[in-house]
Amino acid sequence: MLIMRILFIGDVVGSPGREMVDTYLPKLKQKYQPTMTVVNGENAASGKGITEKIYRRFLEKGAQAVTLGNHAWDKKEIFEFIDDADHLVRPANMPEGTPGKGLAFVKTPHAEVAVINLQARTFMAPLDDPFRKIDELIKEAKKRTNIIFLDFHAEATSEKQAMGWYVDGRVSVNVGTHTHVQTADERILPNGTAYISDVGMTGPYDGILGMEREAVMKRFLTQLPVRFEVPKDGRTQLSGVLADIDEKTGKAKKIKRILINEDHPFFS
Amino acid sequence: MLIMRILFIGDVVGSPGREMVDTYLPKLKQKYQPTMTVVNGENAASGKGITEKIYRRFLEKGAQAVTLGNHAWDKKEIFEFIDDADHLVRPANMPEGTPGKGLAFVKTPHAEVAVINLQARTFMAPLDDPFRKIDELIKEAKKRTNIIFLDFHAEATSEKQAMGWYVDGRVSVNVGTHTHVQTADERILPNGTAYISDVGMTGPYDGILGMEREAVMKRFLTQLPVRFEVPKDGRTQLSGVLADIDEKTGKAKKIKRILINEDHPFFS
Amino acid sequence: MLIMRILFIGDVVGSPGREMVDTYLPKLKQKYQPTMTVVNGENAASGKGITEKIYRRFLEKGAQAVTLGNHAWDKKEIFEFIDDADHLVRPANMPEGTPGKGLAFVKTPHAEVAVINLQARTFMAPLDDPFRKIDELIKEAKKRTNIIFLDFHAEATSEKQAMGWYVDGRVSVNVGTHTHVQTADERILPNGTAYISDVGMTGPYDGILGMEREAVMKRFLTQLPVRFEVPKDGRTQLSGVLADIDEKTGKAKKIKRILINEDHPFFS
Amino acid sequence: MLIMRILFIGDVVGSPGREMVDTYLPKLKQKYQPTMTVVNGENAASGKGITEKIYRRFLEKGAQAVTLGNHAWDKKEIFEFIDDADHLVRPANMPEGTPGKGLAFVKTPHAEVAVINLQARTFMAPLDDPFRKIDELIKEAKKRTNIIFLDFHAEATSEKQAMGWYVDGRVSVNVGTHTHVQTADERILPNGTAYISDVGMTGPYDGILGMEREAVMKRFLTQLPVRFEVPKDGRTQLSGVLADIDEKTGKAKKIKRILINEDHPFFS
Ligand SMILES: [Fe+2]
Ligand SMILES: [Fe+2]
Ligand SMILES: [Fe+2]
Ligand SMILES: [Fe+2]
Ligand SMILES: [Fe+2]
Ligand SMILES: [Fe+2]
Ligand SMILES: [Fe+2]
Ligand SMILES: [Fe+2]
Repeated sequence: MLIMRILFIGDVVGSPGREMVDTYLPKLKQKYQPTMTVVNGENAASGKGITEKIYRRFLEKGAQAVTLGNHAWDKKEIFEFIDDADHLVRPANMPEGTPGKGLAFVKTPHAEVAVINLQARTFMAPLDDPFRKIDELIKEAKKRTNIIFLDFHAEATSEKQAMGWYVDGRVSVNVGTHTHVQTADERILPNGTAYISDVGMTGPYDGILGMEREAVMKRFLTQLPVRFEVPKDGRTQLSGVLADIDEKTGKAKKIKRILINEDHPFFS
Repeated sequence: MLIMRILFIGDVVGSPGREMVDTYLPKLKQKYQPTMTVVNGENAASGKGITEKIYRRFLEKGAQAVTLGNHAWDKKEIFEFIDDADHLVRPANMPEGTPGKGLAFVKTPHAEVAVINLQARTFMAPLDDPFRKIDELIKEAKKRTNIIFLDFHAEATSEKQAMGWYVDGRVSVNVGTHTHVQTADERILPNGTAYISDVGMTGPYDGILGMEREAVMKRFLTQLPVRFEVPKDGRTQLSGVLADIDEKTGKAKKIKRILINEDHPFFS
Repeated sequence: MLIMRILFIGDVVGSPGREMVDTYLPKLKQKYQPTMTVVNGENAASGKGITEKIYRRFLEKGAQAVTLGNHAWDKKEIFEFIDDADHLVRPANMPEGTPGKGLAFVKTPHAEVAVINLQARTFMAPLDDPFRKIDELIKEAKKRTNIIFLDFHAEATSEKQAMGWYVDGRVSVNVGTHTHVQTADERILPNGTAYISDVGMTGPYDGILGMEREAVMKRFLTQLPVRFEVPKDGRTQLSGVLADIDEKTGKAKKIKRILINEDHPFFS
Repeated sequence: MLIMRILFIGDVVGSPGREMVDTYLPKLKQKYQPTMTVVNGENAASGKGITEKIYRRFLEKGAQAVTLGNHAWDKKEIFEFIDDADHLVRPANMPEGTPGKGLAFVKTPHAEVAVINLQARTFMAPLDDPFRKIDELIKEAKKRTNIIFLDFHAEATSEKQAMGWYVDGRVSVNVGTHTHVQTADERILPNGTAYISDVGMTGPYDGILGMEREAVMKRFLTQLPVRFEVPKDGRTQLSGVLADIDEKTGKAKKIKRILINEDHPFFS
C-alpha cells in the first residue's frame, strides 16, 4: 500500500508562531517524512491576516499549501496577491466573486492532493452553506485525485462533527481550525476519513488564543474596547496533526496529534 | 505532602452516558483512588436536563457532587428537588433568586472541597458576569477550605482560557464543559491551577455531541426543525480528568485526561 | 395611469390577530378598495406557525396571498399542505429542496402580481444569501409581470434598509416583517420602490410582540425557561400598509401605514 | 396641573446629524417650548462615538443631557472627559468601575429630572442585567425627583417592550434608541409611562442607518470587510419625540413623535 502522509500545522499566530514553524517544521519533516505539508496562516501576520512575504516564507520553509479562515482579509495587501497565489486557499463558501479560491490542487512526489478550506456558520458570518459546497468541491476534486484534504474553519463543535460525519469516506482528512485549542478527539471515522475537531494554535503558549492574556481578560472584565496584540516574548507552542492516507483509495489509515511546548517537549 | 485527588466526568449524555458511568466509575475509582468525584449531569436525562432519580444514582455510584450548565432546567422536575439536593450545583452566576445554588461544600475523607459551577456568556445566555462572580465565590469558599473545584460551562475558547488565567493560583482545578469535545490542553498553570478547556462528553461515541448524527446533519443541511434524540445503541465513550492537589496549599500538582472508547480502551 | 393597490397585513398573532383580520379586513377593503391583499401568517396559529384551516380562512376572508417567516414550520401539519397551497409563500432563500415555494404569481382583476418572501440572516438562521436570491427572483418574476411584492422577514434594521436600497426600482413594494413593531419610515425610494422597515404585528395590543407580557418579562428577569402564550383576551391591534403602484411601470406611487388600536381608532 | 415637557432627539449621526440639531433644535424649542432637551450622541462624531467638543456643542445648542450607547467608547478621548461631563450619561449597566455614570440629575426651570441610560443584552454585549439595574436606579432617582427619563439602547423589540412594561408607572418616559429607525408605536402605557420602541436616527436620510449605503450593501453582498463612513452630503433627517409629564406625579400625559425630512417637512 502506497501511503501519502500529510502534515498540517494549526493557526500560526504572529511572529512567535512563525518562529515555531521555522524551528520545528524542518525537524518534523525530518522525523515524520510527510509527503506534503499544509499550514493554516489566517493569523500569521501579527495575529490577524497574512502578507505575501509570510505566505512565501511558509512555502520556502516547506509547506505546499496555506489555508485561511475568518481572518483572511485582515491585512489589506492580500487582495493584491491572492489571485496569483496558487497555493493559498481561502474559505470556498465565500460568495461567488470573492478574490482567491477555495480549492487548490497540489502536486506532490506521489499523487496530487486537493486542498480545500471551508468556513462554518454557527456563531460566524453567514457565508454560503458549507455542506452543499463540499459536495460540489468533492465532485470537482475527484476528477483529478482521490486525496482530499479539508480544513474546516469552525467555532461550534456540533457543526465540526456534523461536517466530519458528512464527508466521512469522501475526503481523506478533515481537520478543524479556528478555536486555537487542540482537541483530543482525533480518529479515523468508519468510512475512512481522518478527523479532528480542532488542531489548535501555533504561537504563544501563555496567551489567550495566542494574544496577550492581560488584554483579553481586561476585555471580559470591563467590556471596554481593548487592543489585542501578540505577545513579543514568552513560551511558545506548535499544534499539528499527521495523517496517513492510502493513495489508491484516498482512505485515511492513521491520524496523530502533534503538540510541542514546554509541557510536551519535542523528541527527534 | 497530603494529596487530594479529584476525578471529574464530563457531560454525561442520556442512558448511554449513565451506563458508562455505572461501568467505569467503579473501575476508575479502583485504579486511581480519587478522594472525590464530580460529574457534570446537565445532559444526563435523555440528553436534556436531569431528574432526581438520576442525580441520586450518580451519588450512589460514587460521585460526591453533580454540576450542571445551560441545560439545567430542561427537565421540569428539577425545580421540585434542587433546593434539597445538597450536592447538585448549578451555574452560580444565574440571577439572584434562581433555585438551587452555585457553590457546594463537600466533605471528603480529607479536607472539604468547594465545588463551583459557572456559565460563560459568549454565544450563550446573558447571565451575571462570571468573572466578578468567581471573585465573590472564591472569597466565600476560602473561609472554609483551600480546595476549590470549578466547572466553567462555556462555549468560546477565549472565555474559557480567560477564566483559567483569571483564577490561576486561586482555584485548585478549573475544568471546562459544554462543547462535548475533549481538548488536549490540560496543564498546570504557572500559579498552580489545573486547567483544561473542555473535558468532553460521556455517552454515544458515534453521534454528534452525543445526539443522533443523522438528525443533526439534517438540521444543518435543511435548516428545518429536527428532533434530537440520544441514540439507543452503538459505541460509547467516557471523558474525564484527574487532578492532584496539595491539600495544604490548594495548589494543583498534576492533571491527567481520561478518554475511554473503542479507540482508547481502558486498562485497569 | 392604471393603479394597482396592494394591502398588506403584518404578522397575524394567534386568535386575537385572526379576529382583527376577520373584523377589519372587510372594512379596510370597503374603505381602500385594494386590488389585492397579502397577509403575513407566520404566527397565526397560537403565535407559532400556521395550519391549513387558518391559511384557507385568510383566503376566504379576502387575502390573495399569505407570507411566512422563521416560524413557518412551527406547526408540523404545514408539511402536509404547503406544496398544494398555491398562495402560501415561505422564505425563498431556504435551502434548495425545502417544501413550498418562495415566489407565487397571483392573478388580480388587473395585472398579475409576483409575491416574494425572503428571510434575513443577521441575528437569524444562516439561510442562503437573500441579496443574490432576490436578483434571481426578480429575473424570474419579470418574465410574467412588472408588479413585484416583497415581504422581507428580518431582524436588523441595517439588513432591512440594505435590501430596500438594493431592490429600489426593481420591486414595486418591499415591506419588512418580523420585529412585530411598526416603523414610521414608510417612503417611496428614489427609483420607485415603496418601502417600510417593518409593518408591525396584528394581535394583542398589551402583550410583548403579541405574547403574554408577564411571561416574557419573567424570562428576561430570571433567565428561566418560560412558556409563551398568546393572551386570550384584552385589547388588540391591526398593523398594515397600503401601496399604490403604476401598473404599467411597476413603480410605486404612494405608501400609507395602517395602525388600528384603541389609541388609533379606525374611521370608515 | 404643572407640565414638564421633555424633547428627545434620537441617535445623532456625524456632521449631517449635528447640523440638523443646529438647524432644528432652536425651531423645535421655539415651537414646542420643551422644559428640557436630551440628545443621544453615541454616533455624533463621524458615526462612532463622541468628542468633548461635540458634547459641549450639544449643551450650547440647548440640550441639557446627552445619552450614549454601545458606541460610547469609539472615540478614545471620551475617557479623558467623561468623568467631568456632568450631563453625559452612558449605559448604567456597564460593569462597576466603568468611567462615567449612568444616571444624571438635571435641573430645569421646574423640577429636577433623572436621566438614565441603559443598554440591552439581546444581540448585544453581555452587560449587567438592565432590569435589575433599573430597579436600583429608580430607587436612587426617587430620592430626589419623580421625573425619570430613560433612554434604553436596545436591538430587540422584545427586550424593548419588556422594559417598557417593566417600568410602566415607575419612570415618566422610556424611549428606545439604537436601531436608527423610528417606530410608530409611541403610546402612554396604562400606568403612565410614555413609551416608544425607537426614536430613530438624526442624520443622512438616504444612507443605511446613517452610513453610506453603497458600503453597507457591499458588505452584505460580498461579506468582505468594508469601511463605513457618514456620507458628506445629501438629504438629512431629524428624529425625535416629545413627552408631557405631570410634574407632581411623574406620570406622562402625552407622547408625540417628531420626524423631519424631505418627505415630512417641518412646519413652524
Ligand atoms: Fe485562527
Ligand atoms: Fe479563525
Ligand atoms: Fe452538555
Ligand atoms: Fe451545555
Ligand atoms: Fe412574526
Ligand atoms: Fe418572525
Ligand atoms: Fe446609534
Ligand atoms: Fe447603538
